[in-house]
Amino acid sequence: ALIAILPGDGIGPEVTAEARRVLEAIDPAFGFETEPVGGAAYLEYGQPLPPQALELAKRADAVLFGAVGDPQFDALARPFRPEAAILGLRKELGLFANLRPAKLFPGLEDASALKREVAESIDLVIVRELTGDVYFGEKGQRTTADGEREGYDLMSYTEGEVRRIARVGFETAMTRGRKLCSVDKANVLETSQLWRDVVIGVAADFPEVELTHMYVDNAAMQLVRNPGAFDVIVTGNLFGDILSDQASMCAGSIGMLPSAALNGSGKGMYEPIHGSAPDIAGEAKANPCAAILSAAMLLRHSLGRGDDADRIEAAVADALRDGARTADLGGSLSTGAMGDAILSKLG
Amino acid sequence: ALIAILPGDGIGPEVTAEARRVLEAIDPAFGFETEPVGGAAYLEYGQPLPPQALELAKRADAVLFGAVGDPQFDALARPFRPEAAILGLRKELGLFANLRPAKLFPGLEDASALKREVAESIDLVIVRELTGDVYFGEKGQRTTADGEREGYDLMSYTEGEVRRIARVGFETAMTRGRKLCSVDKANVLETSQLWRDVVIGVAADFPEVELTHMYVDNAAMQLVRNPGAFDVIVTGNLFGDILSDQASMCAGSIGMLPSAALNGSGKGMYEPIHGSAPDIAGEAKANPCAAILSAAMLLRHSLGRGDDADRIEAAVADALRDGARTADLGGSLSTGAMGDAILSKLG
Ligand SMILES: CC(C)[C@H](C(=O)O)[C@@H](O)C(=O)O
Ligand SMILES: CC(C)[C@H](C(=O)O)[C@@H](O)C(=O)O
Repeated sequence: ALIAILPGDGIGPEVTAEARRVLEAIDPAFGFETEPVGGAAYLEYGQPLPPQALELAKRADAVLFGAVGDPQFDALARPFRPEAAILGLRKELGLFANLRPAKLFPGLEDASALKREVAESIDLVIVRELTGDVYFGEKGQRTTADGEREGYDLMSYTEGEVRRIARVGFETAMTRGRKLCSVDKANVLETSQLWRDVVIGVAADFPEVELTHMYVDNAAMQLVRNPGAFDVIVTGNLFGDILSDQASMCAGSIGMLPSAALNGSGKGMYEPIHGSAPDIAGEAKANPCAAILSAAMLLRHSLGRGDDADRIEAAVADALRDGARTADLGGSLSTGAMGDAILSKLG
Repeated sequence: ALIAILPGDGIGPEVTAEARRVLEAIDPAFGFETEPVGGAAYLEYGQPLPPQALELAKRADAVLFGAVGDPQFDALARPFRPEAAILGLRKELGLFANLRPAKLFPGLEDASALKREVAESIDLVIVRELTGDVYFGEKGQRTTADGEREGYDLMSYTEGEVRRIARVGFETAMTRGRKLCSVDKANVLETSQLWRDVVIGVAADFPEVELTHMYVDNAAMQLVRNPGAFDVIVTGNLFGDILSDQASMCAGSIGMLPSAALNGSGKGMYEPIHGSAPDIAGEAKANPCAAILSAAMLLRHSLGRGDDADRIEAAVADALRDGARTADLGGSLSTGAMGDAILSKLG
């Protein structure tokens, strides 16, 4: 299998290097190709998502992505900023389903700001729609009739877009606790009203799943108050962006959590949910766990190797149980030493 | 002064009754008039915001609002749902600035899901824009060229809308810790890009305030990880809805937190941030503290009686210190008995 590695900016190259070592240990026959994206690609080629990176992502069996972004590029026009790489890859590869598991690893109870018993109860997956919503609608700045500047972005979802992400939500719930909570703002938004109606329609095909609906403000509250009550959450692109980052923090360090972005046919892009962390880039301090766990998701969802994914996840848990900790977890291991600790558990 | 009371649905009438008793104790000369809104008004007059309620709200010096909403009305067309009352009042009275303080009262450390030291550190105000954004843009459902149903809502802000809420943010920061964090999603949204540019412009008039910018997903994370780092947050209507509910939960029970919705000239509507809680309505179990603290904000912001507001806030803190607790706080006092406990501290 060919795995594309798009390391990106900041700590991206450091953490994907460890994930690659783990993948090599799993199967020496894997092939790897690497291309710069984000700010790194802008500096080299004048654009954040050069054609050869996109071509590689399309050709590969799966994509391992690091992180993009650096404040030095904030003043560029939107299509030249590092974020355009990730938004472009999602759109071009049709990666409409973002899976973001959040769960506390044993031993990391102190890393969460939540009380121990609350943090321990978290074991949920957020299924976030990734190629629609206000992210990809018509947007711009214009002058109003009164001569004022105005910024605008159109939020929208079609029936078909909602139906396919709802199915992923229900299917994910079927592999877990069979509870699905659909999050919207149907008391205010027509986009949400359509969302809710379509989700209710899809529910007919999944009679074993218990479906509930929650307004996004209430969901943000319940994720703090009683996160253990959630099994699977399905929501739109914007609400999913906010809630998944919130949930990840409830579960402890953002350095621990992976994500998958999938299209309908097994192609996927896998990335840590953390950013490029320019402040610690190049210092070998970054936690590689999220990237390594993203590699595990890659094996499970794109290469049909669930057993190998289980092995990696167990190795991460074992290493943590033995006390392996990078700085974000209160320890002092370097990125590479944390990788070593996990590799040694892989056996 | 004439105070309009709009009790609304569920526990709204119970909690506003206690707030009224407190206001009467502060000044027997206050006048009160009451009108139904929300589901209660729909049942009586066929509309959630009848003309006489709106007229009263306009005529009064300030408005004390309870809560609206009941699932029995969810299937009605949007203009007939209880929420239309609150959205209509905000728009008609021009209440563009929503102040939502979040702070843990001493003695309630156990009520927060956050670790004690994290919860204790919270003392922030969210300044939420309340009459623009995707809440009030063009919205509807339509059929796409492919014959699919589509829901849409236009998100937008004009320069002038951002400028006036930014000023409230900076002014609020000047009365507190002089730190303002503006929350947006400028890496994706043009509305946010305009927001950020305008906030930076307004900053020139407030050189003593330290201004920072944060993406909304990161803000949701930091509100869990290190909420004590925030002083004042200024943000748009939608992000403010989500973040203020999240922050309130970090600070403990949602039964404790008040809010103010202000226009540019002292007129304001004051309401607990909790909802109508139909499940406990009529059982005299609701916590009246949020409504009573909303009455304190009313005195401070609309009637220029900051000293009386301070007295009420001290009385609530005193009652809690003495162990007065409703069910949501782990106690057994009824709504009225909690009101009594606070009144007795007012002296
Ligand atoms: C970088 C940014 C465009 C992106 C998003 O908002 O989707 C990020 O926050 C994420 O969640 O992957
Ligand atoms: C009831 C609803 C329309 C309202 C809002 O979204 O603004 C509520 O959640 C609030 O925050 O006051």
